[in-house]
Amino acid sequence: MAGSTFGTLFRLTTFGESHGVAIGGIIEGCPAGIEIDEQLIALWMDRRKPGQSDVTSPRKEADIVELLSGIFENKTTGTPIGFLIRNKDQASADYDYLKSTFRPSHADFTFTEKYGIRDHRGGGRSSARETACRVAGGAIAMQLLQLHNISIHGWVSSVGTITAPDNVEINDAAIFGNSVRCPHPETAAKMEALIRETAQSGDSLGGVISCVVNGLPVGLGEPVFDKLHADLAKAMMSINATKGFEYGMGFAASRMKGSEHNDAFIKNDTGITTATNRSGGIQGGISNGQPILFRTAFKPVATIMKDQVTVNAAGEQTVLKNKGRHDPCVVPRAVPIVVGMTALVIADHLLRQRSAQL
Amino acid sequence: MAGSTFGTLFRLTTFGESHGVAIGGIIEGCPAGIEIDEQLIALWMDRRKPGQSDVTSPRKEADIVELLSGIFENKTTGTPIGFLIRNKDQASADYDYLKSTFRPSHADFTFTEKYGIRDHRGGGRSSARETACRVAGGAIAMQLLQLHNISIHGWVSSVGTITAPDNVEINDAAIFGNSVRCPHPETAAKMEALIRETAQSGDSLGGVISCVVNGLPVGLGEPVFDKLHADLAKAMMSINATKGFEYGMGFAASRMKGSEHNDAFIKNDTGITTATNRSGGIQGGISNGQPILFRTAFKPVATIMKDQVTVNAAGEQTVLKNKGRHDPCVVPRAVPIVVGMTALVIADHLLRQRSAQL
Amino acid sequence: MAGSTFGTLFRLTTFGESHGVAIGGIIEGCPAGIEIDEQLIALWMDRRKPGQSDVTSPRKEADIVELLSGIFENKTTGTPIGFLIRNKDQASADYDYLKSTFRPSHADFTFTEKYGIRDHRGGGRSSARETACRVAGGAIAMQLLQLHNISIHGWVSSVGTITAPDNVEINDAAIFGNSVRCPHPETAAKMEALIRETAQSGDSLGGVISCVVNGLPVGLGEPVFDKLHADLAKAMMSINATKGFEYGMGFAASRMKGSEHNDAFIKNDTGITTATNRSGGIQGGISNGQPILFRTAFKPVATIMKDQVTVNAAGEQTVLKNKGRHDPCVVPRAVPIVVGMTALVIADHLLRQRSAQL
Amino acid sequence: MAGSTFGTLFRLTTFGESHGVAIGGIIEGCPAGIEIDEQLIALWMDRRKPGQSDVTSPRKEADIVELLSGIFENKTTGTPIGFLIRNKDQASADYDYLKSTFRPSHADFTFTEKYGIRDHRGGGRSSARETACRVAGGAIAMQLLQLHNISIHGWVSSVGTITAPDNVEINDAAIFGNSVRCPHPETAAKMEALIRETAQSGDSLGGVISCVVNGLPVGLGEPVFDKLHADLAKAMMSINATKGFEYGMGFAASRMKGSEHNDAFIKNDTGITTATNRSGGIQGGISNGQPILFRTAFKPVATIMKDQVTVNAAGEQTVLKNKGRHDPCVVPRAVPIVVGMTALVIADHLLRQRSAQL
Repeated sequence: MAGSTFGTLFRLTTFGESHGVAIGGIIEGCPAGIEIDEQLIALWMDRRKPGQSDVTSPRKEADIVELLSGIFENKTTGTPIGFLIRNKDQASADYDYLKSTFRPSHADFTFTEKYGIRDHRGGGRSSARETACRVAGGAIAMQLLQLHNISIHGWVSSVGTITAPDNVEINDAAIFGNSVRCPHPETAAKMEALIRETAQSGDSLGGVISCVVNGLPVGLGEPVFDKLHADLAKAMMSINATKGFEYGMGFAASRMKGSEHNDAFIKNDTGITTATNRSGGIQGGISNGQPILFRTAFKPVATIMKDQVTVNAAGEQTVLKNKGRHDPCVVPRAVPIVVGMTALVIADHLLRQRSAQL
Repeated sequence: MAGSTFGTLFRLTTFGESHGVAIGGIIEGCPAGIEIDEQLIALWMDRRKPGQSDVTSPRKEADIVELLSGIFENKTTGTPIGFLIRNKDQASADYDYLKSTFRPSHADFTFTEKYGIRDHRGGGRSSARETACRVAGGAIAMQLLQLHNISIHGWVSSVGTITAPDNVEINDAAIFGNSVRCPHPETAAKMEALIRETAQSGDSLGGVISCVVNGLPVGLGEPVFDKLHADLAKAMMSINATKGFEYGMGFAASRMKGSEHNDAFIKNDTGITTATNRSGGIQGGISNGQPILFRTAFKPVATIMKDQVTVNAAGEQTVLKNKGRHDPCVVPRAVPIVVGMTALVIADHLLRQRSAQL
Repeated sequence: MAGSTFGTLFRLTTFGESHGVAIGGIIEGCPAGIEIDEQLIALWMDRRKPGQSDVTSPRKEADIVELLSGIFENKTTGTPIGFLIRNKDQASADYDYLKSTFRPSHADFTFTEKYGIRDHRGGGRSSARETACRVAGGAIAMQLLQLHNISIHGWVSSVGTITAPDNVEINDAAIFGNSVRCPHPETAAKMEALIRETAQSGDSLGGVISCVVNGLPVGLGEPVFDKLHADLAKAMMSINATKGFEYGMGFAASRMKGSEHNDAFIKNDTGITTATNRSGGIQGGISNGQPILFRTAFKPVATIMKDQVTVNAAGEQTVLKNKGRHDPCVVPRAVPIVVGMTALVIADHLLRQRSAQL
Repeated sequence: MAGSTFGTLFRLTTFGESHGVAIGGIIEGCPAGIEIDEQLIALWMDRRKPGQSDVTSPRKEADIVELLSGIFENKTTGTPIGFLIRNKDQASADYDYLKSTFRPSHADFTFTEKYGIRDHRGGGRSSARETACRVAGGAIAMQLLQLHNISIHGWVSSVGTITAPDNVEINDAAIFGNSVRCPHPETAAKMEALIRETAQSGDSLGGVISCVVNGLPVGLGEPVFDKLHADLAKAMMSINATKGFEYGMGFAASRMKGSEHNDAFIKNDTGITTATNRSGGIQGGISNGQPILFRTAFKPVATIMKDQVTVNAAGEQTVLKNKGRHDPCVVPRAVPIVVGMTALVIADHLLRQRSAQL
């Protein structure tokens, strides 16, 4: 129970450190008969990989996903899908100074205390490099969802204090048409400028990623502990640097009255639906056929280029001067991770739902 | 995988419907040798049970937890602890009108679609009555935590738009000294007044519960998917009516710069710690020895006494007039649930940590 | 992970000690919409319960299963089915002498060492009383199987050195028409005589239970670790007093040649089948449409009425003189347990199979 | 829940098909701080790999285990250990004739029915090639066990009707000193002769592997479903071609009387132990400090070089003439698999035991 497996029926287990030979994973429980589009996997890997623009880390990784099993003549066979992503541009020497220093708000100290040993190179297992495996796994889950006409869109809705307006039209062209992954061009331009400016000052930023799932049938999610939004919350909060999750009206709902928040049921041509969607598509932990809407907050990147007070492994007070290649703001590259993790949750609940009725 | 089990090593599985004979559960994995104080279980059950004040539901339940196994001569034996809570004051007839009507923002519609059948009496399995089992389970987990000097305090930090000031002193006397469970007396008085007034207008309120865990050793939480805060997020979001979760600086962190958010490591008499605790006691998903701080948002209660547009099971548009006994604001009674679920998460990670090192 | 849960999708978790207030369990994952026949549950409980004949323990237990949740208007609702079986005729005082003595080939010593504490009354959690919950759970699983025309028959095929002939016709009337549960009347008579005679001499017997599953569709069982026979083996070996498991030709297969053991595929009116069934209905861990056949060996009951050398809790050599009520041979009463556990395994794999294909 | 994961705390998940690019796995939950000896892994891989003698398959595989993560400066770090074994000498063309033919007593038919698609090359996922990952995983588990002075020895105790005498001295030199892995030289010679002779006649053989675990502390194994022998049974029965499992006196116990089978407790210098070990080192599912003893039966290899009646994918009756490279008797190469799976079970229960007591 060491925490590197996600999901119950559709499951991803990952391995790998930032500067090891390779990272990778195993997807278990993917049904047989899905035609796999490797281009789609590559597309999502590209959307996450570093070195794409001046607002992300200059580390260069091809991030090519080698599919090793579970697919025969382009179709899933029902057996585990093993995959591998080689680490190429490690530059581990850049991290030698971290061997004996605990970076503030990083996991260096907690890993060392937890395990008594730590692969310090590039953050080891606590590096966000691990999330590449989630994107690969998510891109396979998506191919199951596509066959059920379910789509997922994630986008950057705020960077620092700059927030995109609500009701922007959401589509991949708009989201991925700029380097910050914000579908509102004017806001995107402001976000990019802020990131550049903050990076130049040696500082870093946080932000919020919004996500919507469309096309979900009614009935997904298990009552009690495995509510659909509880599993989404866990999925999101398992991503590096996240600090908060909300769905539907979220924290704002806590300030509303019942008469303002409730979604009236109405009958239309397609059946029973709700007049509004303040619930964010989920009632009692179960999807109600409306779009699923949620937001995830990310803290500012912990690695900054300013001097910081810290302690070394010998327990002595010291001053940290960071080196290495880092994103000044993680949210643009986190969009594919949010989307991938969402795909994993939905795929899992889609399969779980198959046992609900006789 | 039907979602009624929580935890991996310290596990709670629950059963029961609001108006069935009984609800109950099984705790698996509780270590042998813990002296169980039944009074403490009763205390937490009392803090959750309805009918205690004019700001909660008038349903009367003794909520006595019958411990059926796993305890011998007052000590846990390491075998499963089965427990039962009889339902007494069901008044199911009050709910006959719900047989064929879907209450807005309740789980009536989604349960019916998911399973093709629904125990409509009092909300069935989707009723918050189920959470009594979590409080019972949590009160047992707490007795393991006490032996490790770990304490948990939850309190109401906002009701609707009324918010308690930060830095209030947190202790059980202050929290449970009033019916809204807010440790700041003046704010508590305002919250009570607002709840009363809103109830009289036939409407309902939401709110926020804050929680702090003190005394946690460094090293709890598993990297990658089972980060400590990811499991806390799932635990909180699995509670009825929750809409959001944040820890440390939460959503506000997304608007800060790295230089403002990072917690500098310092050396003091007890070892390595941090100068500030914006991280909320967790770094890289692993506890760092500082207090764990998080907040959970609850929506306004879906049952209101105003007429609401809805649809009945025959698919006809209708108007719902609610009956039954309901809380106008759920947060005061949800405090023991938040505390109980937190205790379950911490107990589980305490045991998981036993396998981290050789 | 304390080992009181069985199954993955159709799951039974049990609790309870031999001389506690009650034993019971929770079934999770039972699909909604199954009409539950409580008489069938009672029938299987009766077939297991003690005090039925002079070849079983005289302990009297009504063994009435109280269904507490998950069933509404006689149908499963998809929510957890909680159930309770009260302990009535405990006679714990009979076991006071065991407080400080380790009975040979019982779990008294190992429990004490494992947990540092032991509920000694009647064997506590290690008593076969716990298996009553398996029979209850199995009887619910069976009702899912019946709707798929799957049937399970278990019977006593040997007691000590007396073995029933092969190719006896297997049906409930023949099996339960005598107190030893052997469908071959002459053999049954010999078995009964042997049990009586052995009991009179203060000694005990073991035996073998055979089991057949008919009507299973092709495709159940997961490759690699969760092969259908691997899960059956675990199920059987988890029953108290079992020492061996074999399916198909079993140990005898190890002495055959491939040309003698292989089952030729043939085509008949219903499709592809095998000419023989030496494989016991499973190939590569997956059901092939033929009857599943397996045998489970039980050791002689450890409690005998002869003096035995042992050690007490103080570590002193002593002589044990047994008291209490015990079966001289466990296999007749174990038939419903074998059948129940088989039903749980098959129900689980039936649901798991729903995710195999797109 | 697709069945490619084994264990709860110490867990192995595997992937890979016989003729894919590679097979591999992930070990989760291995405690940090174990010094890993790669030579030991290589040794066990060599003991399993084909092409070593004239009694095994001539397929040549280097079977080099690439360790990709979780180990830093030769020590486990507590993070998942990913590993890869490249497939080299696939010769898939040899299997083209199997594309449309179901081999008797192989999994070709059941896989096709289960998934609707099948990677037929070399048996795909149902090939025993998959077990190489179990040997690799087991060899890592063993390094945890060695630090607890626990040792495991498996050996061939029968091939066809040739059986080694009891009470042979068991050590690695004796076991691996001959190609059949039987520690009794005269019996080994007879076994080798029988295998050669049977192979020449185009037929195949089965056999039995015995296994002993020494040095296990008292207390391992969980009561009820996860009894130590139940998990061992599942582990063994999950290995390809197994038909039966027994521990202690096994099936023979069913023919003994209680007074003949019970193990008297005695006190000696080291504490409480038993005078005999008919229980096979386990009582009530929990280790009692005596050696664990069990036996696993393997059927004769299904691939024989004689013509066999079968059906093709078009449902037509046909005659199969086998090609490809196969073992005439699987048990010599299965010894490392039995040992590896045993190591995984023991490592898992060693970690589970850490939560038994306060």
